[in-house]
Formats: sequence, C-alpha cells, structure tokens
Amino acid sequence: MIRELAEKAKACLPALAQGDRDQALLRMARLLEERWEEVKEANEKDLEAAQEAGLPKPKRDRLRLDEKARRDLVEGLRQIALLPDPLFRIEGLVKRPNGLKVGRMRVPLGLIGFVYESRPGATVEAVSVALKAGNAMLLRGGKEAFLSNQALVGLWKRALKEAGLPKEAVSLVPTTDREAVLEMCRLELLDLLIPRGGEELIRLVQKEARVPVLAHAKGVNHLYVDERADLGMALELALNGKTQRPAVCNALEAVLVHEKVAPAFLPRLEEVMRKQGVELRACPRALALLEEAVPASEEEWDREYLDLILRVKVVKGLEEALDHIARFGSRHTEAICTQDPQTAWRFLEGVDASLVLWNASTRFNDGFQLGLGAEIGISTTKLHAYGPMGVLELTTLKWVALGEGQVRT
Amino acid sequence: MIRELAEKAKACLPALAQGDRDQALLRMARLLEERWEEVKEANEKDLEAAQEAGLPKPKRDRLRLDEKARRDLVEGLRQIALLPDPLFRIEGLVKRPNGLKVGRMRVPLGLIGFVYESRPGATVEAVSVALKAGNAMLLRGGKEAFLSNQALVGLWKRALKEAGLPKEAVSLVPTTDREAVLEMCRLELLDLLIPRGGEELIRLVQKEARVPVLAHAKGVNHLYVDERADLGMALELALNGKTQRPAVCNALEAVLVHEKVAPAFLPRLEEVMRKQGVELRACPRALALLEEAVPASEEEWDREYLDLILRVKVVKGLEEALDHIARFGSRHTEAICTQDPQTAWRFLEGVDASLVLWNASTRFNDGFQLGLGAEIGISTTKLHAYGPMGVLELTTLKWVALGEGQVRT
Repeated sequence: MIRELAEKAKACLPALAQGDRDQALLRMARLLEERWEEVKEANEKDLEAAQEAGLPKPKRDRLRLDEKARRDLVEGLRQIALLPDPLFRIEGLVKRPNGLKVGRMRVPLGLIGFVYESRPGATVEAVSVALKAGNAMLLRGGKEAFLSNQALVGLWKRALKEAGLPKEAVSLVPTTDREAVLEMCRLELLDLLIPRGGEELIRLVQKEARVPVLAHAKGVNHLYVDERADLGMALELALNGKTQRPAVCNALEAVLVHEKVAPAFLPRLEEVMRKQGVELRACPRALALLEEAVPASEEEWDREYLDLILRVKVVKGLEEALDHIARFGSRHTEAICTQDPQTAWRFLEGVDASLVLWNASTRFNDGFQLGLGAEIGISTTKLHAYGPMGVLELTTLKWVALGEGQVRT
Repeated sequence: MIRELAEKAKACLPALAQGDRDQALLRMARLLEERWEEVKEANEKDLEAAQEAGLPKPKRDRLRLDEKARRDLVEGLRQIALLPDPLFRIEGLVKRPNGLKVGRMRVPLGLIGFVYESRPGATVEAVSVALKAGNAMLLRGGKEAFLSNQALVGLWKRALKEAGLPKEAVSLVPTTDREAVLEMCRLELLDLLIPRGGEELIRLVQKEARVPVLAHAKGVNHLYVDERADLGMALELALNGKTQRPAVCNALEAVLVHEKVAPAFLPRLEEVMRKQGVELRACPRALALLEEAVPASEEEWDREYLDLILRVKVVKGLEEALDHIARFGSRHTEAICTQDPQTAWRFLEGVDASLVLWNASTRFNDGFQLGLGAEIGISTTKLHAYGPMGVLELTTLKWVALGEGQVRT
C-alpha cells in the first residue's frame, strides 16, 4: 500500500517539475480560508480523542489548529509562493578548452518521505517547501493528528488538481503504527527521508533507514562565556537561549564559563535564572560559586532537557570549552560570548555544529531567522544540508554539458 | 583495531584543518620521486602473487605501478596543491534586519572511509583530494594491492610528518577481508563512506552502511539519436562513447534511435562498430535494419557490459526515449544528439542523471573533464554530490552568525 502510493507519487515528478507549483500553493492558501470548517471539524475530533486518551495538555495544545494557526499557515503559503522558482537554473556554466559548455542545473530531489509527530501544521508547512522545490511527498503523521492530517492532505490534493497538477504528488500513509515508519525506512523509492519528532523516533529512523536521511536527533547547545565577554551581554544570551522557548531544539542547555570570570558571572546568572524559575545543575567548581544549584551528574552532560534546567561548568579557557563541546555537543547550535575577535574566530572555525554564533542567542538556528524564507527541519547530518533545510536544500544540482559534437581523445 | 585507527584519525581533524595540507601534498610528490624503489618493490611482490594466484592479465595491468603511473601521480599531487584552499571561506554573508550577519563557512566533512579494489594509484589520488579539503582518511584497499597500498600509505605518513601534520590522519586498514568492509559500514565515526569498485562491492556497502555513502553502482549510459540529429556526429559520439575506453563507468552501453532516422543510421552504425569489433544487440525493429546483430534479451536492458558490446533500440521519439532511460538508466550519464534546441532542452531538463549531455560524448563524465581539477569518484546519489566528486564535494557548509548581543524576541 505504501509502495503503491510511492510509485504513484514518483510518476508525478516530471509533471510537477514542469507545472505551476506556485499556483498550487496559492490555491492551498485559498482553500484553507474557504474550507477551514472541514479541517476544524477533523481537528476537534482529534482533540476529543486525545483528551479521552489522557494526552497531557502541552501535547494537546500542539495538536490544536486555531484561527492564529490558520492565519500563519495561509501567510506562510503565500510567502513561499513568492520566493523565486529554484528549478532549471544553471549555475556556473563555463566553457572548457574543447568548447564544451558545462554547468550545474538545479533539479528536484524527487520523492521525499516525511515522518512526523503530533503538530498537524507541519502537514501544510513541510509540503509547501517540498512542492516549491518540485518534489513529491509521502507523509506519515502521528496517530493523534491523523484526522487533521487527512483533512489537510485532502485540501492539498484539491489544490494540486485546481493548479493542473497530479493529485498523487502528495499522499498520507493511511496507517500510523511503527510498522509504517519501518516500511518507509526501507522504501528505496524515496530519494530522501526526513523524520521530525522526538529523539526516539529520529534514532529509530537513523538506525533502520536504507535511504538517505536528513534530521537532527537533539540540540545539546552550549554558550561559552569567555574571559573577555561582556558579562551583561552574556547574561542576556543565556537568558534568551534558555527561557524564551525552552522546549525547542535551538534552546540553550549548558553554559561554559571561563574560570577568570566565573566568580563575577555565576552569582548574577543564578539571580536572573532564579527569577525565571530555572534550575541550575553545576560542576563542582561552579557549585562553590552558586547558592542553590545542584550537582550535575556525569551522565547528564549530553542531555537535552527541553525544560527550565541549565547546566553550568567552569572551564580553564577556550581549549577546554572546545573539547567539551566536541565531546558532549550534538552538532546543532553552539555560541561564544567574547569581545576578543581572535578567540571568536578560533571558536567559529573550530566548532563542528550546524550553526556557530558569536555574541548572539542560540535561538537563531531557524530557517526564517537565517533568511531561508521557509524551513522543513534542521539537519545535523553534515552531508547535503547542515542546518536549517529550506527550498534550495530540497533540490540537487546535476551536471549538464552543451556541445557541438565533442568527443574525448 | 579499525575503530582505534578511526578514533586516532578523527582526533587529527582540528590540526589538519589549520595545518599546511598543500605542503603535505608537495612532500608526497617529492617522496614518490625519491623513494619510488620502496613502492616498486612492494608492487612487484603484489604482481608476483597475482600471477601465482592466476589473476587475468587485464587485472594485473591495473595493478601495475610503472614509470608513467608515477609521473601521473606526481603531476596530479602538484596540480591539487596549486588549487585554492577551500576551507574557512564564508559564502553569502548577509546582514539580517536585526543586524546579525549570517553566512555559511566551508569546512571539512571530517573522517572519510574509502573502500576500493585493485588499482593502487587510488591510494595517492583519493587521499590527495580528501586531504586538500581537510579530511582524514581511513583506507581499505583490495587484497591484490595490499603491499603496494601499504608502501604508499607509509609515504603519506612520512609526508604528513614532514609537513608538521599528524601522521594518523591517513591509515590503511590492515585486513582486506569482507569483514573489514562490513565493520567500516557500521563505523559511526565515519562522516562519509566512499566505495569504489565493482557493482557487487558497491551494492554490499549501500545495503549494509549505517553511515552516509556516496557512490555509483554502475553506468548504464544511453545516447538518444533524435530525428533531427546530425547523423555523422551521432556516429562519432556512439563510437567514442563505446570504444574509446569500453571498461569505464562513463562508456556508452546503449543507443536509442528515432524511428524516422533508424533506416539511414543503423547500417552506418553497424559498419563503424564492426570495424572496431563491437557486437550489436538489438530490439526487434532494429534487428530488421542490421545484418549481424543478435537479439537483445529482455533482461539485459539495464546491463553494464564494460566491453565491446552495444545495445540498439528503435524508439518512436523523445517520450519513449525518456521513458526508457527513466526505467533502465542508472542515473550516471545520458546524452542526446539533435540539432533541435527545443528537443535538446526537454532532454536536458527531463533526464535524471548526474550528467546530461547535448551533442557530446558520455566519456566527459569525469572530474578533470568537467573542470574540478581532481576526482575521488562519481556519485549517483542525489544528495550532496551528484556526479564527479572533487575537493569541494568533500567539504560541507556550516552556518556562522556574527552578532553584537542579538536575542530573539
């Protein structure tokens, strides 16, 4: 069944690439306005079932499609439709000594599998980015959002049809069990598989996949406060990173402080964090400088709390900070606070992460914040796309050569 | 043992990225001149063993490192050393509305595993491309070339040391059995695994790998001769594609001919191919126009002969050619011969292959021919690198952000 959906989607690729995909996005925006009742009804059934099943309130909130969610989705679709069409432009066409003109043409990746949990808004956002780039999409959403996802995919099929495109280009897998995930992992028809959700789901897909996967499992993100940091700025960065939205992947999980500034910095950090209800877990040296912190256990230095908990560690300097990040970081987002450009550049060059920041909050690791205009997820895989994946990251470059009969001699 | 080598190589990455890698390449070139006797001696032992083991002559020829091979390797090293250093340049640094400057910095992929068969020259060429891009290399060469590879890796370690770089950055796995390949497939320390060799090896690695793989399994490459082709040119392209070097991956394996020109073209094709000793295997319609061709069986339309055999098929036109290529091609190299630009562009856009050519020989799918300056292999994986992989294809782009205390609001 999944294979059949995939084969049909794959057969749409030539028509998608040559068709008016922006028109499909604009039609979808219009349908979300005109036929919202259908989506709302399905979403309410999902919410009722979630309540009966005892799903905790934060998860139910993520499931809800309210008026604001609708406005954001519609606005997002119209913005993506306005982005330039990435397909079939040729980059770097050069003339070789034999007269052959060679360059690289941007084309869709092909058929993308998308495995995701709860939030049904992703059914609109992810598909819009993939379609913009000319890809077909096979979706496997979470159990809790099944009816909402089904309603939204129904609108996608209608939007595609209204734009003169094959409706099989976007499909929802009709089952939400673990077997469906495993089947997608082994579906060699997929050119790319993007899992989005909890660490457990991502690890499962990364382990089982026989097709290329782009994803991040977690964001264990550090802020290194250098001896030459502006401590007021460092406090703001720590506070923003930890508390502005603690449950997201680019939130801050640990602060590393240079030993020379630790006595001045840590009490101030404790004060602002206490006001926000943040619990500090500290290394022995930091503990001595803090009043209410608890010891951090050896096992938790690579943990992603996604909560109001912050680790604190005193380090001897840049080298120890780099070593710590290399050992415990997750290649997601790493930041330094310093007024010393030399130290900053050593950090920027030396840290292996999808975004490395100097004097800015880790919260900027996001496709919109970095100017991509849209995002389907963040990758910590180093191949193809390292960081937020937007429209261009869902395309590839094939070589083209324009000749007049050239042969090799 | 393999894991230990990988851990040591991985630890070299910061020193490699910041060190004088060009110096290591130049030292290697010098060592190949000064200490060639060591390599030659090892190579002769490999050749003796190969003869005793009854290895066929073409395979023994590939194993041999003669004077010409040495000159080519030395020349290649010096050319790669002259290429610009790709690392730490920042692409597209833009200022966001909040003043944050964001861009993408080119950095090494990390630790690359390279699994290859017979030809020992690859031990120099592949390592030089990887090192240029700041990567460490873990090599698993073929049994037949083991002593040659060991001698060459010995020189690499010496070259690295003379350039002030850690010699653990390049290592040869001391076993050449299948188990070593499987162990590398599961070695999550590898940022990339590149297999190069026969179809069986590639399929094994693609099936077993738990790490990102870039490779091509085979090159089932077509030339479509359109109704508006210059038939003289088409003959030259077919001849060059099939006979200039039949045993390589970018050689031509099949010709698709438009039915309107088949009666004029096929007898001429048969004549030139006969002179080169090429056997033609044909579809029923083509058979009727050829004198000595044999029928092509249904099972062989996706076969890579790597030999003086050419398939011939008559098609109704462009659409049938596109369908045939989509079904039987291997996404490696596909060419059209036509004087009609509209048909040519439909082919260039519509064919999914790492190189699509218009009026040029398939033999141009090669890093040197396309202007990369070097090549470690050709990828038909669409992610990250589609086509020849040179120095840039062995790097990645991470995001960097330069701020003055920016936080998200």
